[in-house]
Amino acid sequence: MSLLVVGSIAYDTIETPTARRENILGGSAPYFAYAASFFGPVQMVGVVGADWLPEYTEMFQKLGVDTSGIEIVPDGKTFRWSGKYHANMNDRDTLDTQLNVLGTFQPKLPENFRRSQFVFIANCAPSTGLSVLDQLQGADLVVADTMDLWINNTRSDLDALMKRIDGLVINDSEAKLLTGENNVITAARKILTMGPKFVIIKKGEHGAIFVSEYETYVIPAFPTENVVDPTGAGDSFAAGMMGYIASQQGSLDGDTIKNALVYGTIIASFGIEGFSLDRYKEINRSHIDERREAFRVMTTF
Amino acid sequence: MSLLVVGSIAYDTIETPTARRENILGGSAPYFAYAASFFGPVQMVGVVGADWLPEYTEMFQKLGVDTSGIEIVPDGKTFRWSGKYHANMNDRDTLDTQLNVLGTFQPKLPENFRRSQFVFIANCAPSTGLSVLDQLQGADLVVADTMDLWINNTRSDLDALMKRIDGLVINDSEAKLLTGENNVITAARKILTMGPKFVIIKKGEHGAIFVSEYETYVIPAFPTENVVDPTGAGDSFAAGMMGYIASQQGSLDGDTIKNALVYGTIIASFGIEGFSLDRYKEINRSHIDERREAFRVMTTF
Repeated sequence: MSLLVVGSIAYDTIETPTARRENILGGSAPYFAYAASFFGPVQMVGVVGADWLPEYTEMFQKLGVDTSGIEIVPDGKTFRWSGKYHANMNDRDTLDTQLNVLGTFQPKLPENFRRSQFVFIANCAPSTGLSVLDQLQGADLVVADTMDLWINNTRSDLDALMKRIDGLVINDSEAKLLTGENNVITAARKILTMGPKFVIIKKGEHGAIFVSEYETYVIPAFPTENVVDPTGAGDSFAAGMMGYIASQQGSLDGDTIKNALVYGTIIASFGIEGFSLDRYKEINRSHIDERREAFRVMTTF
Repeated sequence: MSLLVVGSIAYDTIETPTARRENILGGSAPYFAYAASFFGPVQMVGVVGADWLPEYTEMFQKLGVDTSGIEIVPDGKTFRWSGKYHANMNDRDTLDTQLNVLGTFQPKLPENFRRSQFVFIANCAPSTGLSVLDQLQGADLVVADTMDLWINNTRSDLDALMKRIDGLVINDSEAKLLTGENNVITAARKILTMGPKFVIIKKGEHGAIFVSEYETYVIPAFPTENVVDPTGAGDSFAAGMMGYIASQQGSLDGDTIKNALVYGTIIASFGIEGFSLDRYKEINRSHIDERREAFRVMTTF
């Protein structure tokens, strides 16, 4: 199996009510790649500047991530994002965004990436996702994420992208924005008419819902008190989900889908227990499976 | 088994974005009594005025509800509440509240109610709940609901009530108000220090969480597009939960608790498909069990 991710690579500066970190590794591709690496090999596509630290490349390579799709722009700076979380650790304000090399990113897939079976287009400009799809030789399963920025500003690119993907992963508030529907299930059904064969609505601390024409699956979030930094939770969720599906050779039967949602939930619940990728460095697959079993006892009736 | 509920009995006037109903039967006790009657006999305690319609008493009696605890004040008017739901069908504004006979209600339990094993103190003044507890002869399980009004205005009565109950059922926003905690699990743990042995956090369309010292259970809500009127959903949820526990002779093992949360979720999902108790009049226990099975397929992994 091969699981490709294309997305942003960032240096984040993050403030929470109790702590602050400057220039830590972030972006949708690193969160996804690290979290998905617990399930199998990953191919990572993104762009960084001259300020990229080679130790990050080494870290990913040790995890089984093929980093040959990370383009380094020698005279550029890596994308930077700065945000501040509210007391509820759910809402946040963006304090600063510097697109830098991400602003002109034209992904060029290495030859061995073009036959990837499983592809996740993490949050990035829809045109970037379309460019990646143009370079692929018939993937088995393509899933994309999106956000308010693209819904509001590049809707026609997003519409074109939605017609070429199998699944869309999207926040509940953004599903409502995309469709104009207040009910999340109604919004999901409307998204199905825009192209994707299935949609997964992420509800943060309230879990996730999978909707396809004939199926609906609902998974709550793993209950946790220890929320250190929620950044990247959505990308980690998608990584657990896609990583598990890829490890099951792309099966999309009901049990695989539910377990994929559960692994996404469990991986994300670890990720938010630390800044950046810190918590992932402390765990292995057995920690994930232990927490999955605890979650099963909490939810399965 | 015997399941007693004390709560408000109301005539509601309700506006939604698409409809309006005037003076329909509402209040926490009717919603609870009707929903719990699918699981076994119910004893109902409340107060109404001269405007009470005898047909409502007959309706409840036909359902196996003992209505001898409904006090009729001949020169009084029944409690009235009026509310308007926002487009999201979740938030609402209270337009008018007329306490009427509820304002001076002093519950007097009929003799055969005093040995009830299972007791639900639905949303009502904590002093009313305390008065009911004073009249009981050692119930097996006492669970209470509460709301912002009592948290803000009659906190010492509420504190006294919490010391005398086994379980508290409370909205997530009200759990945060009661404890000053932003994290819902932390809030639940703090409530456990106030008296109850367990707490159930209701999250509306996002499901419910049960927390005791050593156990946590999490159940999502049944996904539905057909939300006609969410009024009474919390009381119906509590009714399914308490009705199921009572039908299991008060067992509180993990499987019973999870199934109780699920039956609460399923009952509530029917209730919101109509105004007042309308949808309940169309269903029977087999509809409930069919939907429970569909929900199991959606969630169990």
